[in-house]
Amino acid sequence: MSSAYANLTRTFTRLSRFGHLSAIAGWDMMTMMPPGGSSARGAALAELSVLRHEILTDKAVAQWLDQAANETLNDVERANLREMRRAYDQAALLPAALVEEKSLVGARCEHAWRQQRPANDWQGFAANLKEVVKLSRAEAELRAQANGCSRYDALLDLYEPGMTAAKLDSTFGELKQWLPSLLARIVEKQSRQPVAVPVGPFAVESQQLLGNALMKLLNFDFNAGRLDVSAHPFCGGVPEDVRITTRYNANEFISAMMGVIHETGHACYEQNLPKQWAGQPVALARSTAIHESQSLFFEKQLGRSTEFLSLLLPQVKTLMGDRPELEEANFIALNQRVKPGLIRVDADEVSYPAHIILRYEIERALIESEIEVDDIPTLWQEKMQALLGLDTTGNYRDGCMQDIHWTDGSFGYFPTYTLGAMYAAQLFNSVKKALPQVHSDIREGNLQPIFDWLQQNIWQHGSRFTTRQLIENATGEDLNPRFFRQHLENRYL
Amino acid sequence: MSSAYANLTRTFTRLSRFGHLSAIAGWDMMTMMPPGGSSARGAALAELSVLRHEILTDKAVAQWLDQAANETLNDVERANLREMRRAYDQAALLPAALVEEKSLVGARCEHAWRQQRPANDWQGFAANLKEVVKLSRAEAELRAQANGCSRYDALLDLYEPGMTAAKLDSTFGELKQWLPSLLARIVEKQSRQPVAVPVGPFAVESQQLLGNALMKLLNFDFNAGRLDVSAHPFCGGVPEDVRITTRYNANEFISAMMGVIHETGHACYEQNLPKQWAGQPVALARSTAIHESQSLFFEKQLGRSTEFLSLLLPQVKTLMGDRPELEEANFIALNQRVKPGLIRVDADEVSYPAHIILRYEIERALIESEIEVDDIPTLWQEKMQALLGLDTTGNYRDGCMQDIHWTDGSFGYFPTYTLGAMYAAQLFNSVKKALPQVHSDIREGNLQPIFDWLQQNIWQHGSRFTTRQLIENATGEDLNPRFFRQHLENRYL
Repeated sequence: MSSAYANLTRTFTRLSRFGHLSAIAGWDMMTMMPPGGSSARGAALAELSVLRHEILTDKAVAQWLDQAANETLNDVERANLREMRRAYDQAALLPAALVEEKSLVGARCEHAWRQQRPANDWQGFAANLKEVVKLSRAEAELRAQANGCSRYDALLDLYEPGMTAAKLDSTFGELKQWLPSLLARIVEKQSRQPVAVPVGPFAVESQQLLGNALMKLLNFDFNAGRLDVSAHPFCGGVPEDVRITTRYNANEFISAMMGVIHETGHACYEQNLPKQWAGQPVALARSTAIHESQSLFFEKQLGRSTEFLSLLLPQVKTLMGDRPELEEANFIALNQRVKPGLIRVDADEVSYPAHIILRYEIERALIESEIEVDDIPTLWQEKMQALLGLDTTGNYRDGCMQDIHWTDGSFGYFPTYTLGAMYAAQLFNSVKKALPQVHSDIREGNLQPIFDWLQQNIWQHGSRFTTRQLIENATGEDLNPRFFRQHLENRYL
Repeated sequence: MSSAYANLTRTFTRLSRFGHLSAIAGWDMMTMMPPGGSSARGAALAELSVLRHEILTDKAVAQWLDQAANETLNDVERANLREMRRAYDQAALLPAALVEEKSLVGARCEHAWRQQRPANDWQGFAANLKEVVKLSRAEAELRAQANGCSRYDALLDLYEPGMTAAKLDSTFGELKQWLPSLLARIVEKQSRQPVAVPVGPFAVESQQLLGNALMKLLNFDFNAGRLDVSAHPFCGGVPEDVRITTRYNANEFISAMMGVIHETGHACYEQNLPKQWAGQPVALARSTAIHESQSLFFEKQLGRSTEFLSLLLPQVKTLMGDRPELEEANFIALNQRVKPGLIRVDADEVSYPAHIILRYEIERALIESEIEVDDIPTLWQEKMQALLGLDTTGNYRDGCMQDIHWTDGSFGYFPTYTLGAMYAAQLFNSVKKALPQVHSDIREGNLQPIFDWLQQNIWQHGSRFTTRQLIENATGEDLNPRFFRQHLENRYL
């Protein structure tokens, strides 16, 4: 008779294979599928999603999880069992009716939002969002009861296991104290250093060549992945076949270039997850925040560093045409420009955390029923004013309606962006200690020691350790926002 | 309580959704996937295939099929039930062990063949092929017992329901009587009409533009499909999102051009299958031979007609550059050249049936145990000599090892190519009767009446009728090779 643990591994391998098909069909939907295929694709993916849910929440899985807890397992197997349990609990906890209703209401809200946002129609959006919030509160309540935690903590745990609002309050609270004044100092300093913006058109073919060259430089394995185009850049596919995307703007090449570096960070993590455990939960990326730490390590710590930009410049000049704006100092300044604005996705790394803290504070209060949807615009205005000194009165479109995340109830996701930025700074600080020559290495294009360090400390472990263990093993301490502050001060002051 | 028939439609809708994912992941594998993704993709597709087999052969399905036979159903539902029963019987008949062994042995034989063919290694190939034939005979025997027919008829029925070796013997027998002499007369005639071959390079971008223009002209719906590149051209995807492929050769553009026309014929059939029954077996294409009749209608009846080639020529000149070889008479002669050769896929439409008759006679005898694998080379030589006057002694590579079909045991498939060519000629004959101006319509680019006729007579019916009913309704009689002969004589003599 095979062990309960062996039965579980077979079940999760099967789930992983179905997940593979879901990932590829999902990627295709965003990159290749003509509009007419949408409805049939949606139905096919939903059918697979129902199947995966049934397989995961089967009674036998619950029994095997209980039995396996008493079987003799090694450390990795024990970690794998922990992740299996987590996946099962997350899936089995919600009644099917709630899952279905949330999916329907979320899809409706998101669909309407695509029209409402350009129309600045807050009232229309708020009506749908209230339904989404109602269901997200219900979900959070069920998860909170099962986990013995607060509602918001229960949602946060979906994206960053072990993270709590208390810890965020303390971390983000610290950030809030120094960020606005640091930002003001940087903006003031940069106001004395004007930059010249290169003027397009920049051929899409040249931008593609630059993207491919960057990916090669960053060790992306083209034997196990691709670069394509989509409306919103993402990293998809499966570890054996990672699909990243970008979008091209003929008037401006830096966004696509930095987007490719960012997604390549996600991709290298995926491509280097532990192959010996492939198909098992323990082989998956640790968390949303750790995933983001890898993309931000690539984009911010590495990609926007003076050394990396210098390394890149000759190729940029070759592909985009030499011109005064691509003189080295100006090119670096362009890529390190800090300019507070209304839109999160366009934000530089200094003002970005302000966007996140604002959203975190609002969504936490919303889920905990301390505020209601109607309170959002006023809070948004106040916090934008306080954190970034910007006025959004009446501008819902570029204010509280700018993001897709709330439309389908992904509350608890936003904090992972800034957690990722802080982890990235903390990891790079350890890289600098381990590799004293890292700055000259980067300038010379010798990046392998950095990849080796990440492989050794992050990638190869998959989900074997908790986020806290992983970060402590890699850096000697738990999350510490000090490294992020140091990074910003070193780069920008 | 829902009816057994309703239960069946739900089950087949579910199967169709999983089939959708299989089709898209399969297309991706051939067009987009990097080599490193191969193993994981294979495992994922196999897992889905096992699932679909389980769903289809579930005991409840067998019960519902029996119960539904006694329920009140309209004509379409009755036809749908017939196709459901057929799908169930085909799947449920074989023991899982045989299916698995056949799949393994077939994959091994095909894999080895990819090396053995270029190496002209008949002995190596024959050893594997014997295993494939053994299992195909076992499969055929089981199917034959269940259907009460001969072994080969049972395999033929998988691709062309209702077709028999007796009918093929009579039809192909007739062809054999006039084909060699007709071929000789055409070759003799054309030997007095030399053609000039345009010399490349022809930019792939220009060939793509030509392909897209052709697809538009042929009413391909780009809102529900795409054109991409693969090593072997095919038509894949799902009716809501049809994916066709071609391959480009910088030295020669006519193959890709004709390939696109061919695959667009397949695609237009798929795109115009009955949407009101989508997801049900009755909404699927009638058969392999009818599918091929649509691609050959597009490519041979329409695409290589003098009128269509004239219509096309200005665009060809624009994209490929005007040159003496693209003078109208030469361009038409190029596309209507008849030249018997060793390779089936390169054959013109006059010599093509000879390749098929040869393969049919050999594979039928093989499955019926009248010959053995070791007999194939000698038979191949004799038949090539008799039918096309060509010698293949010792040249296995371009002889009996040239096709992929036998490597995985797809015996019974070959005849559908020539059945398709004959159906295409018969259908076009009816189009000419229904649309007396069709030749001038084609020359002027007014193709809609042709598409309307196909829609009315073939596409909209899916699998509602048997092949024989469908052809009789459309043309007034059952398959009649006379129309194919007339077509060849009219075009080439």
